[in-house]
Amino acid sequence: MQDTRLLENIRLVLCNPTHAGNIGAVARAMKTMGLSRLYLVNPSHFPDVDATARACGGQDILESAVVTETLDEALKGVNLIGGLTARQRSLSHPVMSLRDAAPRFVRQAEQDEVALIFGTEMSGLSNKELEACHVIVHIPANPVYSSLNLAAAVQVVAYEIAAGYFEIPHASTPPLALFEDVERFYAHLEEVLIDIGFLSLDSPRKLMSRMRRLFARAGLEKEEVLMLRGMLKALSSNRKTVDIERSDD
Amino acid sequence: MQDTRLLENIRLVLCNPTHAGNIGAVARAMKTMGLSRLYLVNPSHFPDVDATARACGGQDILESAVVTETLDEALKGVNLIGGLTARQRSLSHPVMSLRDAAPRFVRQAEQDEVALIFGTEMSGLSNKELEACHVIVHIPANPVYSSLNLAAAVQVVAYEIAAGYFEIPHASTPPLALFEDVERFYAHLEEVLIDIGFLSLDSPRKLMSRMRRLFARAGLEKEEVLMLRGMLKALSSNRKTVDIERSDD
Repeated sequence: MQDTRLLENIRLVLCNPTHAGNIGAVARAMKTMGLSRLYLVNPSHFPDVDATARACGGQDILESAVVTETLDEALKGVNLIGGLTARQRSLSHPVMSLRDAAPRFVRQAEQDEVALIFGTEMSGLSNKELEACHVIVHIPANPVYSSLNLAAAVQVVAYEIAAGYFEIPHASTPPLALFEDVERFYAHLEEVLIDIGFLSLDSPRKLMSRMRRLFARAGLEKEEVLMLRGMLKALSSNRKTVDIERSDD
Repeated sequence: MQDTRLLENIRLVLCNPTHAGNIGAVARAMKTMGLSRLYLVNPSHFPDVDATARACGGQDILESAVVTETLDEALKGVNLIGGLTARQRSLSHPVMSLRDAAPRFVRQAEQDEVALIFGTEMSGLSNKELEACHVIVHIPANPVYSSLNLAAAVQVVAYEIAAGYFEIPHASTPPLALFEDVERFYAHLEEVLIDIGFLSLDSPRKLMSRMRRLFARAGLEKEEVLMLRGMLKALSSNRKTVDIERSDD
């Protein structure tokens, strides 16, 4: 995991949020991506039971949220500001896709305070609020219906900003089989396939090549080769038993 | 915008969703990213007013959602299956980050049906449900608290899969200024700065280089150069008036 301290230089600002549930969901979304600094400009209801209910593991973010009366107060001390908006604006600031904008904000957060601001649920950021921004950040969306829920937008933004800082959990990778063991398996398999009459050396139909392709794609593990060899052996001895029984008839 | 028809080959499957509100929020999240095919395996409450309330513009997705009793039914006709999980699993399938997995699912959706399955809210996908998957898809998240809300996870997945198909809205880009007009502006600016005594040719302090750097970074537009030249002119004539007035004293 990379050093996540720079994430502390990133604040998310909600302008006039009207649904307390959304504030809680925003706190949860931030928490999952390691963001911690939430600013609420003139929220309709806060604190509120709905916010608390939906914050789940993000309670600490709700508790440390900074409530201000104006956007200017929430932006004090900030160097770089991005505004999220779905709508096209005239006389607009530079518009960047979220994917392009995220690295710029992360890079700046290494040395400066940065803010991403989100508008009120029904109408988004006002033109006055956008004027505080250096850049407009846009989440590409379905032109037929592009209105992400506020907390959903925050989740996507937080993911794009911070996900690169977290690793995906890996189960300990089992050891792959050795080349020579896999070759012995193929030889064994071929032998059995000939034995059961499925493979004829006169017209092999690329059967073994196809088998190799399949198992190569899967990437055989050591234990799997042992398992497959065991199956082939069981099959062979079972057939011999059957043959013996038949010859007994 | 690219051809989005392949998005119709992608189905999202919710296993045992317990909160109807989440189902609605999932429908909205899908709609914003152009996904339309929702499968619900054994939902606790559906249809439900909470689902309808939170679906907003995704009502049509709720209405066409397919409800099944088992995961097997929901996966009928599917070629490639990915399971979303936040937890580490033993004896696991290959684990891919969402970012790496998304292109694989999109590529496959060009010719096949693909499914992404999401577990129940409290505990995620069961081991049995994961066994239906080709690959486990993981959203990198804060190890301290990695539990995304179900609809938030769907929003991020849908964004990663489909956002590349939608364009960001651009305000019509105003024309940039011509080189020679910008040079005339710099000459004019220098003249005024000397005139007001801020720039001395004896110790220019790199002032004009800094000015050039600032305006180059902004990328001056044609209209902006006209505006700046106008300001410089107004400043000059104002100073002349002041000089005349002074000489009248």
